[in-house]
Amino acid sequence: MDATIAQPSTALLTDRYELTMLQAALRSGAAHRRSVFEVFTRRLPDGRRYGVLAGTGRVLDAVENFRFTTPQLDWLADQRVVDDATLRFLADYRFTGDLRGYPEGEVYFPGSPVLTVEGSFAEAVILETVILSILNFDSAIAAAASRMTAAAGDRPVIEMGARRAHERAAVSAARAAYVAGFGATSDLEAGFTYSIPTTGTAAHAFTLLHDTERDAFTAQVDSMGRGTTLLVDTYDLAEAVRTAVEVAGPELGAVRIDSGDLTLLAHRVRRQLDELGARDTRIIVTSDLDEYAIAALAAAPVDGYGVGTQLVTGSGHPTCAMVYKLVARATSPEGPLEPVAKRSAGGKSSVGGRKWAARRPDADGVAEAEVVGTGPVPAELEPHLLQVPLIHKGEVVGREPLAAARERHLAARAALPLSATQLSRGEPVITTELYHLAPEPRA
Amino acid sequence: MDATIAQPSTALLTDRYELTMLQAALRSGAAHRRSVFEVFTRRLPDGRRYGVLAGTGRVLDAVENFRFTTPQLDWLADQRVVDDATLRFLADYRFTGDLRGYPEGEVYFPGSPVLTVEGSFAEAVILETVILSILNFDSAIAAAASRMTAAAGDRPVIEMGARRAHERAAVSAARAAYVAGFGATSDLEAGFTYSIPTTGTAAHAFTLLHDTERDAFTAQVDSMGRGTTLLVDTYDLAEAVRTAVEVAGPELGAVRIDSGDLTLLAHRVRRQLDELGARDTRIIVTSDLDEYAIAALAAAPVDGYGVGTQLVTGSGHPTCAMVYKLVARATSPEGPLEPVAKRSAGGKSSVGGRKWAARRPDADGVAEAEVVGTGPVPAELEPHLLQVPLIHKGEVVGREPLAAARERHLAARAALPLSATQLSRGEPVITTELYHLAPEPRA
Repeated sequence: MDATIAQPSTALLTDRYELTMLQAALRSGAAHRRSVFEVFTRRLPDGRRYGVLAGTGRVLDAVENFRFTTPQLDWLADQRVVDDATLRFLADYRFTGDLRGYPEGEVYFPGSPVLTVEGSFAEAVILETVILSILNFDSAIAAAASRMTAAAGDRPVIEMGARRAHERAAVSAARAAYVAGFGATSDLEAGFTYSIPTTGTAAHAFTLLHDTERDAFTAQVDSMGRGTTLLVDTYDLAEAVRTAVEVAGPELGAVRIDSGDLTLLAHRVRRQLDELGARDTRIIVTSDLDEYAIAALAAAPVDGYGVGTQLVTGSGHPTCAMVYKLVARATSPEGPLEPVAKRSAGGKSSVGGRKWAARRPDADGVAEAEVVGTGPVPAELEPHLLQVPLIHKGEVVGREPLAAARERHLAARAALPLSATQLSRGEPVITTELYHLAPEPRA
Repeated sequence: MDATIAQPSTALLTDRYELTMLQAALRSGAAHRRSVFEVFTRRLPDGRRYGVLAGTGRVLDAVENFRFTTPQLDWLADQRVVDDATLRFLADYRFTGDLRGYPEGEVYFPGSPVLTVEGSFAEAVILETVILSILNFDSAIAAAASRMTAAAGDRPVIEMGARRAHERAAVSAARAAYVAGFGATSDLEAGFTYSIPTTGTAAHAFTLLHDTERDAFTAQVDSMGRGTTLLVDTYDLAEAVRTAVEVAGPELGAVRIDSGDLTLLAHRVRRQLDELGARDTRIIVTSDLDEYAIAALAAAPVDGYGVGTQLVTGSGHPTCAMVYKLVARATSPEGPLEPVAKRSAGGKSSVGGRKWAARRPDADGVAEAEVVGTGPVPAELEPHLLQVPLIHKGEVVGREPLAAARERHLAARAALPLSATQLSRGEPVITTELYHLAPEPRA
């Protein structure tokens, strides 16, 4: 366990009301009631056909590192956030319950119970914010990334959005994009932390720094070799391409175009490179690409896409609407779990009871429904259950290499109906069926 | 300097191309050319009338903590990101140049040079990503927050969006919202790190945990006192309000409504509270509020707003379009700075030369133009210059309490024409005038 202590504590990535609810529940005695919280979303972002769960591995780290340090406890005491009894509880806090959930990279739909947290109310309620923060952000990025890699087909997509995201969020964005099929990232911290391949080209500043574009290209090729990628749109594009091939020879690895009409320019540059004998020199395009721009370039002679802003902002949907809801709790230590649910008007009511979920395939193996239910699981759905154990009695049991999540995502997406990867706005590509739900919770 | 070493290193929050450009420039000899980079944006988000600069204080921390640790250097070597000469440079890296910029909380417009970084190319080029990450994110949040606090007028606005943002970005979002006039945050880490006031109410889970709503309210009041805020929309709203006043008495601090037609419900709850004698009990509303919803509630009996998703996602604009561009460099150690600029087609060309900026007031003291120029500053604009020293020869000179940025923002916004805080879409509320610009840079 020593390794986890060295990580930054996640314990204050928490909304104040979680600790004050804890205090009140410790006083009322209800804090020790066995409780089940579920993470789910009521809807996908408008027009999206599937969601992509990402961040599960980070949730496991965050729960392990959810320990209150002495300076944190002193601050809580000094600010009178909670009373002494609660501080004593927090000082010893360690999650001892269970997490089950969809494995990372899996797709999801409205109502999918992507994560189930079971433990005492006290230990589960205070994890709400950090769990939602991670899953809402990472899944938003992965959903956008998945549409982009689907649009790109076999061409590689590179994540280069760090500068348009919070500096730490950028690292998680690179991770989520990798889960959803991106091939590399420009972000070194993401390479260092998660072993994601890193890559890069050069900025306009490098050309501007030197006395001439030829000087700049020569410096880059001398340093990085002929396989490097030269940025060719600082001054005149055609002149730059000519200079690039003169400097590097036909072995030049790639050129990057970062502005202008990319379809037109890609054709023009391809023709010029071929005429110069640089038939193997690739063309990389960047410049505020999103999944639609990538799709529009499908017929252009482009060899790779660099995506920035639109990736790290979720291509119009920078967060998911995942919530963390109490769905069942026992009223006595050994008593049964009873379903509970909010019932007021306003579209925010939810379904009580702990859920299972299965993705039912049709005769051809293509997903036809997300089945979410309470109670016993029908035998025919057993092989298609989606949740897996992640933490058992406080011990992480669901850690896996990032590559596993990446492979899972590509397989899960491929098992959806073909219309899943249509970019046009539409309904979720399969419907969520509610099965065998428990009776209405008591008033 | 010991304190800064203990902070997490920011050195790998960097795009790979910055280190490879550094390597190539070290080899070509150009790395030591004196260089000036500017951070600016070509446009505001569509329809927005002013931008709000936030994150400056975090930039100063990030530059101080931009030191490569041994594990980071080992990883760079192992991955062959850069060569040995570059690794030696990085091992000793410490920024020794100058930062000048708009002070935090100041407003800005297209072309405003919000930050100027001067030093050798080598030391300045590698700060690009971390500086842009911070300013683009924090300023996006502050811009949305400023519209919300303007719409709320004298009523307090509380930041509670942590669960809808990356867990670390959420802390910075709370900070940026505070700069733009928010009164408090739910995020404990933001309180711990930045001394921002924290606050909170309770979740539906707390009511559902208990056997009855009355039990839950009693537990909360017993624990938190009568001044607490009770969440009244778990079951039946009118019944909950009645129970709340029965439990807490007319001294009940506040009730929170989190769903439904907030205008209608606020009126109904206000009437009920008054009839029950709870005339001083406040009404707090939450539920996916943005600046438009806040404005629409202006005539409703609401005492405070809690804002989540729309704040942390920048209310439709989750990032700014700030860029970090080389605008001048010397070609010899003691030579003059020469302006440089990208000139290709595609809308991404820029203006060379180091800029100053001033906000010219009209006779009534209301801002009438953002004047951006190169060369000598006209005497009449001297008193209105916007940039201040932030780092001088590597030493931070511009650190200030967060409250100073907060006061500055409110003053700067108040000095804009009244139409600045109109919520309707429009052009920037003042135009940016280019003054006395240097001649076109050489080809």
